[in-house]
Amino acid sequence: MAFAPPLFVVLDGIDGCGKSTQAKRLAEALSMRRGAPALHLREPGSTRLGERIRELLLSRALQIAAPSETLLFAAARRAMLDELVAPALARGVDVVCERFHASTFAYQAFAGGLDAGQVLELLRTWAGEPVPQLTLILDLDPELAQGRRRAPSDRIEDRGLEFQRRVASGYRRYAELEPLAQVVAADGSEEHVHRLVLAAVNAWFAKEAARG
Amino acid sequence: MAFAPPLFVVLDGIDGCGKSTQAKRLAEALSMRRGAPALHLREPGSTRLGERIRELLLSRALQIAAPSETLLFAAARRAMLDELVAPALARGVDVVCERFHASTFAYQAFAGGLDAGQVLELLRTWAGEPVPQLTLILDLDPELAQGRRRAPSDRIEDRGLEFQRRVASGYRRYAELEPLAQVVAADGSEEHVHRLVLAAVNAWFAKEAARG
Repeated sequence: MAFAPPLFVVLDGIDGCGKSTQAKRLAEALSMRRGAPALHLREPGSTRLGERIRELLLSRALQIAAPSETLLFAAARRAMLDELVAPALARGVDVVCERFHASTFAYQAFAGGLDAGQVLELLRTWAGEPVPQLTLILDLDPELAQGRRRAPSDRIEDRGLEFQRRVASGYRRYAELEPLAQVVAADGSEEHVHRLVLAAVNAWFAKEAARG
Repeated sequence: MAFAPPLFVVLDGIDGCGKSTQAKRLAEALSMRRGAPALHLREPGSTRLGERIRELLLSRALQIAAPSETLLFAAARRAMLDELVAPALARGVDVVCERFHASTFAYQAFAGGLDAGQVLELLRTWAGEPVPQLTLILDLDPELAQGRRRAPSDRIEDRGLEFQRRVASGYRRYAELEPLAQVVAADGSEEHVHRLVLAAVNAWFAKEAARG
């Protein structure tokens, strides 16, 4: 697999679905496969600007309506794509990112009430390149997710179970709309979910090998 | 004039063209005319979120490329429109704002190299309401402006005279494209420029009165 093209893969899903754990394990598995470290990113953040924007977005001292939220996420995402993702892929490095367009669709459009077409158009125009080859939505019942995660600790987690339910529906809708996105059941053990994630990634590599 | 509709007017132009001074004097004149205080805003800023975004945009510790800059300006603008401008106009209060879409067009598109159509479309979709009824571009030779203003004190002012020349051209181009924008010569005395600004505003009120 040494000559396989680099993979830009996104893990997304509601708070407490296991994104961070699974992204870490996936990055380790990709590093082993490639024989070279994968880049593990999180959104919003990962760049200097992105981490500053993250502070604003999560701050309980600010009230931020969905349109400004969306624009801030897009600003952080564009910086991450230009500064980190594009250079990594150009060097042949695999990239694993926690959260991406699916989050914006689920939180700001589907649950936040913004026009989905306008949100997707914004992301396509202003944070459209590079495109993730694969987006895995870790799907977990919001009540189970709430049990798994620590107490709400920021402005967005504060929104409660009803909001998380709408977000979860938004993620499933995104996977229906977006050909490069798929749902992975995330209610099993960490090990089991890791195997499902790896299976999806291996299928992608197999398809690429068949095309190449 | 007590029943004249409220006016949302923008003063824009390069650093050192006299925006703040003229905006303050215009707000005072409108307050006298209306017999009620006008709202004087500046961009980016004026809201809690906007002032936090302003810190990021002006910070010399950050490098921010034109696309993320544009998205951050749009996020601050949308918050200002929703939280301050729309409620003020609804109460019949006149609004004077330093900087608005013309700045984004001049700095990020014309001088910053972004596609002008994409930038204007972003602003129209994400920061499009309320629309300023009048945008006055204070036009001053960038060398004169540089002489007038204090030493560069932030990330954007650091860009130097050649950049300011491109920005000045961008402002003039904006006034050509945008029917609600006009250029005001800003090379006279403060008093003289104030009279030109008032003349443009009075012409707007006269037109409104003729329509009403």
